[in-house]
Amino acid sequence: MLPRGRPRALGAATLLLLLLVVVGFFLFGRDPEYGLRAAATFDGDPNGSRNRSASGLQSLLPPKCELLHVAIVCAGYNSSREVITLVKSVLFYRKNPLHLHLVTDAVARNILETLFRTWMVPAVVIRFYDAGELKPVISWIPNTHYSGLYGLMKLVLPSVLPLSLARVIVLDTDVTFSSDIAELWTLFAHFSGVILLWLDRLRQTGWEQMWTLMAKRQLLTLTATSLADQDIFNAVIKEHPELVHPLPCVWNVQLSDHTLAERCYLEAADLKVIHWNSPKKLRVKNKHAEFFRNLHLTFLGYDGKLLRRELFGCPNQLPPGAEQLQQALAQLDEEEPCFEFRQQQLTVHRVHITFLPHQPPPPRPHDVTLVAQLSMDRLQMLEALCRHWSGPMSLALYLTDAEAQQFLHFVETSPVLSARKDVAYHIVYREGPLYPVNQLRNVALAQALTPYVFLSDIDFLPAYSLYDYLRASIEQLELGSRRKAALVVPVFETLHYRFGFPNSKAELLTLLDAGSLHIFRYHEWPQGHAPTDYAHWREAQAPYHVQWAADYEPYVVVARDCPRYDPRFVGFGWNKVAHIIELDAQEYEFLVLPEAFSIHLPHAPSLDISRFRSSPTYRGCLQALKEEFHQDLSRRYGAAALKYLTALQQSQTRA
Amino acid sequence: MLPRGRPRALGAATLLLLLLVVVGFFLFGRDPEYGLRAAATFDGDPNGSRNRSASGLQSLLPPKCELLHVAIVCAGYNSSREVITLVKSVLFYRKNPLHLHLVTDAVARNILETLFRTWMVPAVVIRFYDAGELKPVISWIPNTHYSGLYGLMKLVLPSVLPLSLARVIVLDTDVTFSSDIAELWTLFAHFSGVILLWLDRLRQTGWEQMWTLMAKRQLLTLTATSLADQDIFNAVIKEHPELVHPLPCVWNVQLSDHTLAERCYLEAADLKVIHWNSPKKLRVKNKHAEFFRNLHLTFLGYDGKLLRRELFGCPNQLPPGAEQLQQALAQLDEEEPCFEFRQQQLTVHRVHITFLPHQPPPPRPHDVTLVAQLSMDRLQMLEALCRHWSGPMSLALYLTDAEAQQFLHFVETSPVLSARKDVAYHIVYREGPLYPVNQLRNVALAQALTPYVFLSDIDFLPAYSLYDYLRASIEQLELGSRRKAALVVPVFETLHYRFGFPNSKAELLTLLDAGSLHIFRYHEWPQGHAPTDYAHWREAQAPYHVQWAADYEPYVVVARDCPRYDPRFVGFGWNKVAHIIELDAQEYEFLVLPEAFSIHLPHAPSLDISRFRSSPTYRGCLQALKEEFHQDLSRRYGAAALKYLTALQQSQTRA
Repeated sequence: MLPRGRPRALGAATLLLLLLVVVGFFLFGRDPEYGLRAAATFDGDPNGSRNRSASGLQSLLPPKCELLHVAIVCAGYNSSREVITLVKSVLFYRKNPLHLHLVTDAVARNILETLFRTWMVPAVVIRFYDAGELKPVISWIPNTHYSGLYGLMKLVLPSVLPLSLARVIVLDTDVTFSSDIAELWTLFAHFSGVILLWLDRLRQTGWEQMWTLMAKRQLLTLTATSLADQDIFNAVIKEHPELVHPLPCVWNVQLSDHTLAERCYLEAADLKVIHWNSPKKLRVKNKHAEFFRNLHLTFLGYDGKLLRRELFGCPNQLPPGAEQLQQALAQLDEEEPCFEFRQQQLTVHRVHITFLPHQPPPPRPHDVTLVAQLSMDRLQMLEALCRHWSGPMSLALYLTDAEAQQFLHFVETSPVLSARKDVAYHIVYREGPLYPVNQLRNVALAQALTPYVFLSDIDFLPAYSLYDYLRASIEQLELGSRRKAALVVPVFETLHYRFGFPNSKAELLTLLDAGSLHIFRYHEWPQGHAPTDYAHWREAQAPYHVQWAADYEPYVVVARDCPRYDPRFVGFGWNKVAHIIELDAQEYEFLVLPEAFSIHLPHAPSLDISRFRSSPTYRGCLQALKEEFHQDLSRRYGAAALKYLTALQQSQTRA
Repeated sequence: MLPRGRPRALGAATLLLLLLVVVGFFLFGRDPEYGLRAAATFDGDPNGSRNRSASGLQSLLPPKCELLHVAIVCAGYNSSREVITLVKSVLFYRKNPLHLHLVTDAVARNILETLFRTWMVPAVVIRFYDAGELKPVISWIPNTHYSGLYGLMKLVLPSVLPLSLARVIVLDTDVTFSSDIAELWTLFAHFSGVILLWLDRLRQTGWEQMWTLMAKRQLLTLTATSLADQDIFNAVIKEHPELVHPLPCVWNVQLSDHTLAERCYLEAADLKVIHWNSPKKLRVKNKHAEFFRNLHLTFLGYDGKLLRRELFGCPNQLPPGAEQLQQALAQLDEEEPCFEFRQQQLTVHRVHITFLPHQPPPPRPHDVTLVAQLSMDRLQMLEALCRHWSGPMSLALYLTDAEAQQFLHFVETSPVLSARKDVAYHIVYREGPLYPVNQLRNVALAQALTPYVFLSDIDFLPAYSLYDYLRASIEQLELGSRRKAALVVPVFETLHYRFGFPNSKAELLTLLDAGSLHIFRYHEWPQGHAPTDYAHWREAQAPYHVQWAADYEPYVVVARDCPRYDPRFVGFGWNKVAHIIELDAQEYEFLVLPEAFSIHLPHAPSLDISRFRSSPTYRGCLQALKEEFHQDLSRRYGAAALKYLTALQQSQTRA
């Protein structure tokens, strides 16, 4: 029996074991202190690390273009973030095609499927396995480890992975590579044929029976109420030491507070894998913590799009859509004045949906999600927005990888934001010079989980009552029953960034009359909201119909299955106008809500609006986009679209 | 003689030569096409790359902690930027202490001295050599190569570097490492003792005589009007082939449009050094251009602070100041509520002064530089600012490494900004959660090169006439003659971000009376500008004196040697107030200029101001800073500082 004073304190030594079970070897760990004595010698053994095994390994690198298999168990929002940093570090150093076998719950699968689809990394194949199906196989084991059932899932990998798969590297989500994973793969080859033979025998004997037997036997004799995967592995190893091969310590440098790993890496300049196995993670106290932290931060902030590079000298292994995309990009003319617009439109941004833990709203027939998008310079709006809108939100954030970490810190340190679990944040990673406003809106819209959406912008604060009022209005107006309607929320603006937000329509009207508030863009762009008919709204007691007119761009509440925004509009201009045309073309009624309002706060003009104003080329490109949009509209709606073209031409004559 | 149809077209082959001249070997290149036939075989030779020489080399890595010497010739603003990306790539992979020998002109030295001093990378020693002193030695050589005389300086490295230096790696600024530079260093050891012996002989024979002889002989026989260093090296090599050792091609993968290098790296998965030797740089057309570009972009955008990590197992080699800094940081209490403030105050930000080419203003006795600081979200102010202020500017930008590249692109694509050579941009790299406003101001202030400075903020647009008016006022008021004065520029604000900027004081007063303009922060923070006495200003025809009062924070013009800003004030609040107190304590007179004005444009509240408003802790920390500032003030100015403390206490009683 193992020394087992603390069920989870399993010893640095254990971390250094290479478990050549059916699927290969495992990197795992717990707090050190107790461990397998047999393996402990490998831990502190300076020879193991001093003999520069790396160089020996490198000459045994796997054949060029050999596919390496990696399995990772990943569940939930936070692990999904962790796993991305791990994958970035692997991709950064890798030179081989990779096959990732991801055992995930529904949440992680949703996130990672979107991410890898939009990441488009060549020579990476992803396969998902439903962790839910594995639960029954292991749920009989009492278990209180923080990773819960998912920790135990490594035990059943042999049965869940395809039989054709002979070898796989199994990784925890909290490791960072500082070397080519192919070097780890070579360790398979490093073992003698005898050990590999044993493996084959093992496979025939049946690993599954072996571990369940051990687990049951352990449960009989132990007073502990739970087992983690590590406990079971240890028990199997104890009985079958021939299954174990020590992994050189550089392949699992663990960073607990009192780790002995220093004895390994102090002598070994060539660290291979860092294991953040302390619950304190990056805040761990360790002599060389800064070194490891910087390595980890390197990949946390690393721009993932740079990892889209192809492998040299291996057959093209482009992900779905990548080839068409490359062709489309290659056809663009770099000298054309609107090249930047064309390129931006074609750009596939990596998307990390639900970047933070999120509680989906319970299904309610009239519920409505606020949808908006922002970049780093609008983060300070989030708290106010949370105070004004108590319902669910779906927000797309346009950030770099490094900014996503700043955003994480911002939410974690904000009591207001961290208290809200019904706000879903979707990161769309920055790429290219123009703000892809409509692509962002579409991401946020696609992730809204309620039947209705309020399509807002980040600089607007809704009336405190708006969430309740909208749900009541949706119910009253019976929007559910296939009635295609867009409910218009009238918008206002203030020029003062400190002002008393009106608590009612009456208060709002007082401020309006006093000149403290204005109709949104009344002076600069009156046609944008003129059809809303603010004079009517002042007096209105009930929702009223309004008609579309040129350049109308109200903020509306619609059913979630509404048309998407046209992604060709990037940067400043016409992005909402085109969407409203689309609604009108699809015969949505426009109904103005008499008690609804939202107020725009002041901000400096965006870079894009500045460029629009200062650059004739920019304006010319926007004009070209408008025309192409109208051509498409005619194609799709025929004669019905004529009125939009006429309106466009009239407005150009006026201008 | 070499084939020499085009003086600069010297052949891919040449790039692959390892020149074991006295100082070591060179990585250099020109457009390929012609080359040394003798070496050409090494270029296409697939064996050279196929035999996985890397693994062989790795086992010969230099002894742990051996100091590696690197020499780089670097001149001017653009090369100074390039060299940093090169150094980042070297630091990322290096495991040894480094000694950088930088041969620089005054511009590059000024930039790189500041950068390395603030970068504080452990185990990196920097030594500068004055390129100016070397000019006479080579200026007799006619030379039209784009790198000019600086290209030729590699020839004289042997005589300029210390005699005690036996080996050095010489790098062009346009290379990117993708491997540990120690592997390159091992190539020295790789050669037989015989070759090393030849080296010693060479040193005795005298390299200098050798190359000058060759150069003169070339000039006699060639019709070309110029020689580049490469031409001379080739001539020497032709005569002394024993000096040459081929460098495996992976160590110099060149990226010209029609490069043959593909034959090398297509087979070699382990690239070592990428050489951006095409004038098209990153836009080069090349089968694997994207791969190389991504590697390069990795280091362009890499957060340099992560490279401050210490080496393992080598004696501590901290740069000046780093140890005290570490101790000071270690003494901070992480649990203390103002920990973030304390940490931010101590942070040493990397500083890249004059990030873009800059023409220093000619010396003029009454000239004045506009000084301001900004971050990414205020870039759009720069064009307007350039239109309003025709004089020199010194601007500190708080950016990440990646944002600095976006900024570069922004300036390059702006006709307004790229036309201005009298605006100096200084990058202060982001680190920590609070905006280090006063540290930024001090960087911009320290780099102002005129006798006077206008201490402004980025959200203000000065009157069109202000630059001329200030110079005239400085002359009239005879500020030059040791008169300690601060000229106050009255400030106003508009709430509209499109408005007609007044062309005169009269127009400004009309707008003020019409309510389109306001006295700056008149409603929110009247005490900030009350002492300026705007009523008096309306009527004033001549400069008038005003007295300091609590919370006064005017925008002023002062001599460049004015007191620095107190760096303890980070984030929002009191940063200018403290500076004005300092001026008053040093008995500066405050003189309001009757025709001067500047107007604040609207913007969204900053993250810091939002935190100030929402967080009592934040406000408490600011209060603590104020109190400490006053204690220091009493210490320095004694009883004279009492009035500031009294004023502070009175304002607290009021609040």
